[in-house]
Amino acid sequence: MVTGHTVKAFDDELGQLRALVSEMGGLAEAAISEAIQSLVRRDLGGAARVVDQDRRIDEIEAQIEREVVRMIALRAPMADDLREILAAMKISSVIERIGDYAKNIAKRVPLLQDARGLEPLSILPSMARLVSEMVHNVLDAFVARDPKAALAVCESDRAVDDFYNSLFRTLLTYMLENPHTITSATHLLFIAKNLERIGDHATNVAEMVYFAATGRQMVERAKGDDTLIPVKE
Amino acid sequence: MVTGHTVKAFDDELGQLRALVSEMGGLAEAAISEAIQSLVRRDLGGAARVVDQDRRIDEIEAQIEREVVRMIALRAPMADDLREILAAMKISSVIERIGDYAKNIAKRVPLLQDARGLEPLSILPSMARLVSEMVHNVLDAFVARDPKAALAVCESDRAVDDFYNSLFRTLLTYMLENPHTITSATHLLFIAKNLERIGDHATNVAEMVYFAATGRQMVERAKGDDTLIPVKE
Repeated sequence: MVTGHTVKAFDDELGQLRALVSEMGGLAEAAISEAIQSLVRRDLGGAARVVDQDRRIDEIEAQIEREVVRMIALRAPMADDLREILAAMKISSVIERIGDYAKNIAKRVPLLQDARGLEPLSILPSMARLVSEMVHNVLDAFVARDPKAALAVCESDRAVDDFYNSLFRTLLTYMLENPHTITSATHLLFIAKNLERIGDHATNVAEMVYFAATGRQMVERAKGDDTLIPVKE
Repeated sequence: MVTGHTVKAFDDELGQLRALVSEMGGLAEAAISEAIQSLVRRDLGGAARVVDQDRRIDEIEAQIEREVVRMIALRAPMADDLREILAAMKISSVIERIGDYAKNIAKRVPLLQDARGLEPLSILPSMARLVSEMVHNVLDAFVARDPKAALAVCESDRAVDDFYNSLFRTLLTYMLENPHTITSATHLLFIAKNLERIGDHATNVAEMVYFAATGRQMVERAKGDDTLIPVKE
């Protein structure tokens, strides 16, 4: 039997679940900034910390999954509540992947110790700030169940793709002009690609938040890799 | 009250859920092969079909999620069954991403029309075959709940990383020797990276299958990007 007391307990638990997802998002957001800071400052210790702290993000994901199983088993939620719970679980697994991308960026820092003079080293922080903001805003939208805020996150993704395409072209010209930069430029290209994927994942979360809040799918957008411009030398 | 009849119905539904996940996996596996075939044969029509058919994979994912919500709401499964159902949902979202990677490969085919003479065009199919097999085998392991088969999939991932690292070095030498190959080589590098990520995702699924079957975590392995070798010119 569902009593007022049970409903209250369920709402409290759902609130705690959202708080966990939010905490996880905050860690992922910090990981992105710290990875890029470490890259710019050639800070090997900072990069190692980002790699190390990713474990905490993975732990929270596992904790969320246990909590989801417990809530479903204990509360037998109805369809709408169930969808909310499953959305929290799905979002946590996307954040886990965002954390992985930040970790992957940090892992490249030791390989870029002699990437001096490559201009994208000063463009990447702006791109990283933009995708960190997307991660931050989409989690605010999730906690506030705000479909408009979710839509705004999707719009930022265009700017991320523009950044990526511009970096791609810039790095190619570096490689063409000076073959000695090819190794460093290739690593920077993968870093830019990791940031671009983070933007995509934030957009996916925004779509889930929108769907959970409105029951409607966001208008179909090209998913995945929108950064495929034909580049001619 | 749980009757024999209810248990039977639940088992049937779980079987159907597994069959859907398996069907989805089959489509993703085919998409990988077809994307690489299209690349090798410069078959723009084939590449367009891979992009188009990705929609079917997305549809099955949505169908699986609806089915999961329905089963949980209707059958109120206990913890073990619930974990199985949630594992199917999680695995389907990984397969959806594998489909996206195959689609991303196909999207690069039109950009590689003049990549003649780049040797990796003949190495990529072997790498693609290996990751397709991983996807195939991990889904067999899932359907059979076979933890040993899941372990074997993880072991193949080393070979995928070796392929990737070797391709990375090869493509860098091409770029260094002939700057005119830089654009094509960069696209091929991203294609190799997509295949490598598919291998990672198959490994993640293997870990989920292992956990669902044994209740134990597979021994910790480095997750994500294990392809970070320092390459010196």
